[in-house]
Amino acid sequence: MRKIVSLFILLMTASRLFAEDGYRLWLRYDKIDNSILLQQYRNNISSVVINGSSPTIIAARQELLAGLDGLLAKKVPEAKEIKNNSIVIFKKTSGFPETIGVDYTALGEEGFAISTLKLSSKGNAEDIIAISANTDMGVLYGVFYFLRLLQTHQSIQHLSVISVPKIQLRILDHWDNLNRSVERGYAGISIWNWHTLPDYIDQRYIDYARANASIGINGSVLTNVNANALVLTKTFLEKVAALANVFRPYGIKVYLTARFSAPVEIGGLKTADPLNAEVQQWWKKKVDTIYQYIPDFGGFLVKANSEGQPGPQNYQRTHADGANMLADAVAPYGGIVMWRAFVYSNETPTDRFKQAYDEFKPLDGQFRKNVLIQVKNGPIDFQPREPFHPLFGSMPQTPLMMEFQITQEYLGQATHLVYEAPLFKECIDADTYAKGKGSTVAKIIDGSLDNHSISGIAGVANIGNERNWTGHPFGQANWYAFGRLAWDHDLASAQIADEWIKQTFTNNKTFVDGVKEIMLASRQIMVNYMTPLGLHHIMGTGNHYGPAPWVNNVGRADWNPVYYHRADSIGIGFDRTSSGSNALSQYTSTVSGPWSNLKTCPDEYLLWFHHVPWNYTMRSGRTLWGELCYQYYSGVDSAKWMQQTWNKMEGWTDEERFRQVKMLLTIQEKEAVWWRNACLLYFQTFSKMPLPDGYEKPGHTLEYYKGLRFPFAPGNGGNL
Amino acid sequence: MRKIVSLFILLMTASRLFAEDGYRLWLRYDKIDNSILLQQYRNNISSVVINGSSPTIIAARQELLAGLDGLLAKKVPEAKEIKNNSIVIFKKTSGFPETIGVDYTALGEEGFAISTLKLSSKGNAEDIIAISANTDMGVLYGVFYFLRLLQTHQSIQHLSVISVPKIQLRILDHWDNLNRSVERGYAGISIWNWHTLPDYIDQRYIDYARANASIGINGSVLTNVNANALVLTKTFLEKVAALANVFRPYGIKVYLTARFSAPVEIGGLKTADPLNAEVQQWWKKKVDTIYQYIPDFGGFLVKANSEGQPGPQNYQRTHADGANMLADAVAPYGGIVMWRAFVYSNETPTDRFKQAYDEFKPLDGQFRKNVLIQVKNGPIDFQPREPFHPLFGSMPQTPLMMEFQITQEYLGQATHLVYEAPLFKECIDADTYAKGKGSTVAKIIDGSLDNHSISGIAGVANIGNERNWTGHPFGQANWYAFGRLAWDHDLASAQIADEWIKQTFTNNKTFVDGVKEIMLASRQIMVNYMTPLGLHHIMGTGNHYGPAPWVNNVGRADWNPVYYHRADSIGIGFDRTSSGSNALSQYTSTVSGPWSNLKTCPDEYLLWFHHVPWNYTMRSGRTLWGELCYQYYSGVDSAKWMQQTWNKMEGWTDEERFRQVKMLLTIQEKEAVWWRNACLLYFQTFSKMPLPDGYEKPGHTLEYYKGLRFPFAPGNGGNL
Repeated sequence: MRKIVSLFILLMTASRLFAEDGYRLWLRYDKIDNSILLQQYRNNISSVVINGSSPTIIAARQELLAGLDGLLAKKVPEAKEIKNNSIVIFKKTSGFPETIGVDYTALGEEGFAISTLKLSSKGNAEDIIAISANTDMGVLYGVFYFLRLLQTHQSIQHLSVISVPKIQLRILDHWDNLNRSVERGYAGISIWNWHTLPDYIDQRYIDYARANASIGINGSVLTNVNANALVLTKTFLEKVAALANVFRPYGIKVYLTARFSAPVEIGGLKTADPLNAEVQQWWKKKVDTIYQYIPDFGGFLVKANSEGQPGPQNYQRTHADGANMLADAVAPYGGIVMWRAFVYSNETPTDRFKQAYDEFKPLDGQFRKNVLIQVKNGPIDFQPREPFHPLFGSMPQTPLMMEFQITQEYLGQATHLVYEAPLFKECIDADTYAKGKGSTVAKIIDGSLDNHSISGIAGVANIGNERNWTGHPFGQANWYAFGRLAWDHDLASAQIADEWIKQTFTNNKTFVDGVKEIMLASRQIMVNYMTPLGLHHIMGTGNHYGPAPWVNNVGRADWNPVYYHRADSIGIGFDRTSSGSNALSQYTSTVSGPWSNLKTCPDEYLLWFHHVPWNYTMRSGRTLWGELCYQYYSGVDSAKWMQQTWNKMEGWTDEERFRQVKMLLTIQEKEAVWWRNACLLYFQTFSKMPLPDGYEKPGHTLEYYKGLRFPFAPGNGGNL
Repeated sequence: MRKIVSLFILLMTASRLFAEDGYRLWLRYDKIDNSILLQQYRNNISSVVINGSSPTIIAARQELLAGLDGLLAKKVPEAKEIKNNSIVIFKKTSGFPETIGVDYTALGEEGFAISTLKLSSKGNAEDIIAISANTDMGVLYGVFYFLRLLQTHQSIQHLSVISVPKIQLRILDHWDNLNRSVERGYAGISIWNWHTLPDYIDQRYIDYARANASIGINGSVLTNVNANALVLTKTFLEKVAALANVFRPYGIKVYLTARFSAPVEIGGLKTADPLNAEVQQWWKKKVDTIYQYIPDFGGFLVKANSEGQPGPQNYQRTHADGANMLADAVAPYGGIVMWRAFVYSNETPTDRFKQAYDEFKPLDGQFRKNVLIQVKNGPIDFQPREPFHPLFGSMPQTPLMMEFQITQEYLGQATHLVYEAPLFKECIDADTYAKGKGSTVAKIIDGSLDNHSISGIAGVANIGNERNWTGHPFGQANWYAFGRLAWDHDLASAQIADEWIKQTFTNNKTFVDGVKEIMLASRQIMVNYMTPLGLHHIMGTGNHYGPAPWVNNVGRADWNPVYYHRADSIGIGFDRTSSGSNALSQYTSTVSGPWSNLKTCPDEYLLWFHHVPWNYTMRSGRTLWGELCYQYYSGVDSAKWMQQTWNKMEGWTDEERFRQVKMLLTIQEKEAVWWRNACLLYFQTFSKMPLPDGYEKPGHTLEYYKGLRFPFAPGNGGNL
């Protein structure tokens, strides 16, 4: 009871402050707390000169003035005349002189330049900072970049910045249903309040657009890939249009998921066969209507013939037939189709790992120019660690789009601190060797390897209507990191973490260094306490919450954990070599060679590709069983270390978020122990080997862990 | 398009401010903007002297220091020594001198006194303000009252305040499900995040407790009356206990809804028969367990044998049998049972209006002392206007508890500005004449009429996880008004509106007067455009959204609007006189007399009790049809007037909420027109009479209105 009261009092202390509820994300613009730096900034920023009056320039103006107002704690005047220490924002075409030394052709549609210039006007040499671009959007991106320099306490002297996005389509996928539940959402319900749209414009819609524009995201798929055709009816298109109007000035296009059977469900047709003329006509008409409501509609995202969703195969047509039909409908308007490669069938006995490749590789070259194939980073489903998807490098004639999952469906959901940038980078930097060394996934998705004219990357959003958007305060870092990497996949995880921490919490070095250390280590720590050595898909059924490696009774084989770990008296792991499912043959030999060989396969992928005997001697010298125990226990130890490190941060940031994270890290450790004990007790029934000496014994029996039930765990269908 | 952009820019202007998101409710404590007053307050408050260290006193201390810190924009020191202009908070028993002239026995458990005193210490006469009570909770209530004086710019000189609640149990009923959906909730999902409890304590839980304590609410029923037995399992009780620990210092007890069939569903028994010894034993054991987790658990709220909920009648037992069984289980712990009178059966052919009375009146005197019967304000179901429930005054031997609905299920849901205090007051002030003139509903529910030792009032909460708690900013006023009236039912609606506006928005007179005028008129305006002249229950099926007087095909008769309005070629209205269902016989003759007579029945109840010919001449001189048209059209005109009045308020408050309300009032007018047109076009098919000259013609046909569908309207079962 004392403990409760003291926690309670601790909490109460903050309630008086309404301190920092996290709503402002990384756009807080609080006063610079370094007085010397503050003075420098004030000296270097005397006025703002803005050219243009488009909604986008108005947005840039608002953001810049609001940002400076907060950061410098003074009103920076807006001037018509360029004076010494003016910040000048302009578009190349707007009559201002081109900035010396900037190659505007290289900036393209979205790039920008920030340059410190000496302008001589009326005989005086004026120092100014020019934020310029070819387009209004480039200018807005430049303004956000400039504000980031101030928020992260960078020097703004002698600026010579050129920034151009490497990937064209940088998109958030919302798995949001029309009743506002969010599939795999752990931060409340959908921020799209369909019921009050179009007449009520929630402030969140604008702040959502601001946050995305600040990191370069330029597209939003509003609806769940498990789609509802009703969103294509006029009632909803009117609502979608209202959102598009809010997003437009921030350079964000809206996309919708197209339910393949819509012609039947809302069109009254007898078929949705993509080669049927009536069906094609229906989609053309539907698209005409959509563009009447949303002139710059982005296009469709489609999940077809996957997990019960209808698709062209219902009519013995190919994915290409389906995608091309929709592509032809949106092509006249410059729209695109994002067609998901996430397909697998329980009728097909083949290793699920192989099915997307088997289905799509043969279709390479058969898709329209405005179709992208959206491929998940790994072959199964957003696991803590997966090898890169074998489709990357296998469809040179088709633009492949990356699908990452920002929401933590398999990464501890809303209660685990897991910084995803290292996971994203691991995949992006992977070398497919498709065209020899250096054929990285990055070059495939940015289109450079095969010279595609269109490129894209998508992240499944972790956003909901909780006050801080993402539930776990560190979920914001994953939204941020996705956007930053979508803009520039060369950025280092540490660099992104550094700027996020500084903008979101504080520039205090102790805090930044300590928290960065936690963030950078967090993903590997989670792999260790959940699925070490290449284990995968051993989580709870349905809600995907917690460990359940014992599950073997789900309707279809490849939904059962036992299908993936294959533990038996001999060993554990999925043999995907030529002696097994031979999934490795889907990679180039340079990749599959080392992975196929037990001796050369990296530990982290071991059980992805090999069924390994319990007593096999690992690189560490431990047996496989010993190594498995070691990894699980070290994962839990590291989770404890995360707590201890965080606790040292008290006082360096606001109490409210400090305590939130403190409570969440306690839950994370508790659940890490749960994962470790449940998995090891279960695998031990096969290995028949004891826990190595000195390891603390599990607090419960295997039966206890098997008996746990979570009927209302969030993110799962009817659950919110 | 221009319109959209300009609205958009308007919105953007605010986004820079993160202005006022409404989260702080009426506890904003912003700096007093009247400089003279600010100086006075600063002069009169030099220090704070606090005696005590209980969690409740700590809460009072935190609130007082935080409030003064914000309102006076200076740190008021906490002192041990009473000095001139100290604010002294203490409990009578804590060794401080009793305040002169305060009758502490009259203050009871929760009352408080605030008095300006001259204390002579060391020869000097010190002016101090004493906030004192018999209990720590009384002190906390006094602190909130004192802060309200400052927030509403009242004088704090010569204070002599005595405040004691008139009703003992002042409770919020949450219709929150365990998956976080909220039945009839229109402000997002439940603030109870069951998944992360008990380890994660959301700041909202504390601010919820603060807000409730500030208006005197002392109980919270956490779960839906359509109950799920799982909340009674240990897994959930552990979570409930965590909430109880947060609420305890704020004087708020937690209650749960008891699913009557729990012994079968989670107890594994064959029956839930309340007279079965095993069942009684099961509940006793269950209650023992609950009190181990929550030593001050309040008790149970039960919906039994109503709308599909199980109950004692499933076993041919009475409501008294069921209530008493639970009452016996909680009695040893001082717990209570709130048993709902909201029962009606489709097997019973009787007018639904009469059924609760028929069921419960005969049971008067058969309930245990710790049972309260919870009666809705009216006989049907929270309609825009209902006569008071005939049970009030009919069960003198039983404490009747009021059930109001704060959430606007039938009052425009989250998009209509409807201030409910006048609705509450209309019922509270109604005279039942049970014991002659002056036998008001107020005296029945506060227990004074029949000298009950226990009294209660409940309000169905309108709270969700949206940033501002209630969706519509003015929904906060209804939460506030319920609490204030629960404490003191003599308060005037205008007085409550006045203090709410000042605390929530501003003390600016123009704003306060204008907005108060809107609030006080709003309920009657809604009655006019929705259900004038005593019409009731003609809303959409299921979601209860919008008009649907034509519906006649719902499974059970008394769920169909046609059952209630009974429109035909002769007239409209439900004959509840002796020539009809004779429901009026359930009232005392002093009440039923005038209501039974068409000539003396007040217009606002007319169609509740009479089937009136279309051409009947009303007091206004108009025919009934003409009057119906007049009321509907004047309702819409008044909705327009609300908009115009609000628009004049621009600049007197923050832009963010100004615009929110502006958008919502536009929706309200749109929906008022919808109600008017749909209802009049439909009733016209019976009256066969034209719209009076000069009324604008409906924009759509009846068929159009009949055709509207809202599959995802919120608050309805699966919908969020």
